[in-house]
Amino acid sequence: MAKAGGGSSIKGTIGLLMGMVQENDDKRVISLGMGDPSAYPCFQRPALAEQAVVEALRCGKLNGYAPTVGLVHARKAIADYLARDLPYDLTADDVYITSGCTQAIDVALTMLTRSGANILLPRPGFPIYELTAGFRHLEVRHYDLVPERNWEADLEAVESLADQNTVGVVVINPGNPCGNVYSYQYLKNVAEMAKKLRVPVIADEVYGHLTFGSNPFVPMGTFGATAPILTLGSLSKRWIVPGWRLGWFVTMDPCGAFKQPKVVERIMKYCDTMGGPPTFLQAAVPNIIEQTNKAFHAKTLDQLELGANILYEVVNEIPGLHCPYKPQGAMAAMVKLDLSVLEDISNDMDFCFKLAKEENVIVVPGVALGLKGWLRFVFSIDPASLREALGRIKVFCCRHSKTVLSEY
Amino acid sequence: MAKAGGGSSIKGTIGLLMGMVQENDDKRVISLGMGDPSAYPCFQRPALAEQAVVEALRCGKLNGYAPTVGLVHARKAIADYLARDLPYDLTADDVYITSGCTQAIDVALTMLTRSGANILLPRPGFPIYELTAGFRHLEVRHYDLVPERNWEADLEAVESLADQNTVGVVVINPGNPCGNVYSYQYLKNVAEMAKKLRVPVIADEVYGHLTFGSNPFVPMGTFGATAPILTLGSLSKRWIVPGWRLGWFVTMDPCGAFKQPKVVERIMKYCDTMGGPPTFLQAAVPNIIEQTNKAFHAKTLDQLELGANILYEVVNEIPGLHCPYKPQGAMAAMVKLDLSVLEDISNDMDFCFKLAKEENVIVVPGVALGLKGWLRFVFSIDPASLREALGRIKVFCCRHSKTVLSEY
Repeated sequence: MAKAGGGSSIKGTIGLLMGMVQENDDKRVISLGMGDPSAYPCFQRPALAEQAVVEALRCGKLNGYAPTVGLVHARKAIADYLARDLPYDLTADDVYITSGCTQAIDVALTMLTRSGANILLPRPGFPIYELTAGFRHLEVRHYDLVPERNWEADLEAVESLADQNTVGVVVINPGNPCGNVYSYQYLKNVAEMAKKLRVPVIADEVYGHLTFGSNPFVPMGTFGATAPILTLGSLSKRWIVPGWRLGWFVTMDPCGAFKQPKVVERIMKYCDTMGGPPTFLQAAVPNIIEQTNKAFHAKTLDQLELGANILYEVVNEIPGLHCPYKPQGAMAAMVKLDLSVLEDISNDMDFCFKLAKEENVIVVPGVALGLKGWLRFVFSIDPASLREALGRIKVFCCRHSKTVLSEY
Repeated sequence: MAKAGGGSSIKGTIGLLMGMVQENDDKRVISLGMGDPSAYPCFQRPALAEQAVVEALRCGKLNGYAPTVGLVHARKAIADYLARDLPYDLTADDVYITSGCTQAIDVALTMLTRSGANILLPRPGFPIYELTAGFRHLEVRHYDLVPERNWEADLEAVESLADQNTVGVVVINPGNPCGNVYSYQYLKNVAEMAKKLRVPVIADEVYGHLTFGSNPFVPMGTFGATAPILTLGSLSKRWIVPGWRLGWFVTMDPCGAFKQPKVVERIMKYCDTMGGPPTFLQAAVPNIIEQTNKAFHAKTLDQLELGANILYEVVNEIPGLHCPYKPQGAMAAMVKLDLSVLEDISNDMDFCFKLAKEENVIVVPGVALGLKGWLRFVFSIDPASLREALGRIKVFCCRHSKTVLSEY
């Protein structure tokens, strides 16, 4: 067997941390590790989504193969859903249905890679990109998200990383792991840069529409006429069904670079090798997208904003921790660790292991996301659990503080 | 974008052929193209399978992420199911759950590939292997299945194709596209050869247990102590739910080559990048496997045998066609085309296009499977449709016969 892909997934890191906890009645395990809120009653899929899948399954006519690119009605529904916010239309042919956004990442990277190619990835980021790039022989060049700029990158610095072998730049918006939401102007500048570099933007919008701050969600595809945009998304987050694994890879490309017959043929062939989601689940997509009401989405945003507010307020009262911005979107934020006020904690990974062992609380170390000295806290859990977890983290930090503090 | 993977999938070829048909009330389209019997009332998934999925979905606790290698209870159920027929036990850790057998093929080929590697594939075969190998930079070396030996290969000839860069040999049993079932002795010889070559056998058993002739189904894993066996399978065919996309990649490897921590870590990381099937569907697997009764499986075999008998009898009455063996398993057979008795038919592809256009019947040309001058006929459809399709093929062949025959 060839050597492993570089790095580890967040799931892999959390798996290691879970090995440290000692579940007991006094202190249940609380995870701020994974962006999966589906376990909490305040975050539940719309009932109609479940009903739509049951009906599709029960009709008995959807047990056979779907086209490997996806059922045309599901592709059309996703195209229409995404085009609502774009200055041009999409067709079913622009949409390729995948097993979650994870597989959409693989489609994008596999389609772009070639001998000697490199891709520009944000740091901190989402480690599946690095893992997938490793398996697809695609060199990774990291560009830094700058905390002082609310996690925007210095685009001149990004541009300077590129060369003639650069095949794309990845932008995750709303931001994972930072909880930031990029402005219209920033995304426009990204598109201009991509145009200059003659590369597409891979727009990871798995948290699309999950924004609750001052910046509205602007789809990267808004700038599709400037540079081709490959948009990745899924039902997972907005419909709170991450385990359903229904995602999409979409070419937002009014100039047609990704509509050339040979390119389309290659994407279709790749889809033939992928597996993809069950036919009955795909068949439910039009109902799910079209019939979920605004109240459901609004409630989700209220819950997320509540979590973000709690996180921001409580974290900034904890010695040794600092959250520079209140999250504006997605389900997690980055928290800076000040090791100078803590003793017995050698780095962010050490923090996470000791926290798991002593407090049965899971958070992801920044090093697993490319940013040492930081931590990722997920806030998409129920408020009581979030407060309890943050309370235990406070106790933990006080206990490990160089100055003995009153909270301990 | 880099160049496309080589070849086309069967679905791609069928898509082209479907472009030729002209659906009308007098002559509905009948496809003997794809191994997907789920459209026919005589081939229907067990009702309990559907019920198990509905219950898993309705419980509301299975909307979140599963481990990317699969839910442990589903892995265990698959391990127990497969181990019933093996001389050693399997554990949940041997099983990785995939989006259908298609994704299991990708796991196998991606895990085995390295710079300069080659893999031995059967010809005729299943084109997803060639497509996937192309995307994974794995050189394909074809070995011939010999019609005169009931589609066994000359293993000395197979062995002579291998070199130090050979990383595996693929065996599809029960056979697709040939409908043959390998003997215990042949499979034992394959394992001995793999041992000599120091490579694993990739055992595609997606049609496992679907046998109805004199050779019983012998899992390749029976010989796991001789050489490591990587078994690929799914619920698709035996449970008649191909569109559910629930498959598995299983290491049958009592000597432990694929249980080394670094190898396991690499497979797990690859699973992290894959997507995989919905959690609720995985959760239903134990019930589906354990509770499907023998009567269901027996009825499927009766239907398949009926189809195989009809195919064999009728085809061998058609001028220009010859099926050398009655199929013993799976859902399709290879039929030899004798162009010397036909006029206006230049090759197997031409036969398929003209048949689609003139008779609204779809069959796959052998050239799409690596064997020019042959055709693949699927027999897993309802008997009336099969007889009608074969009747139209007979009319077609008589019409194109060099001698005007009475049937026309």
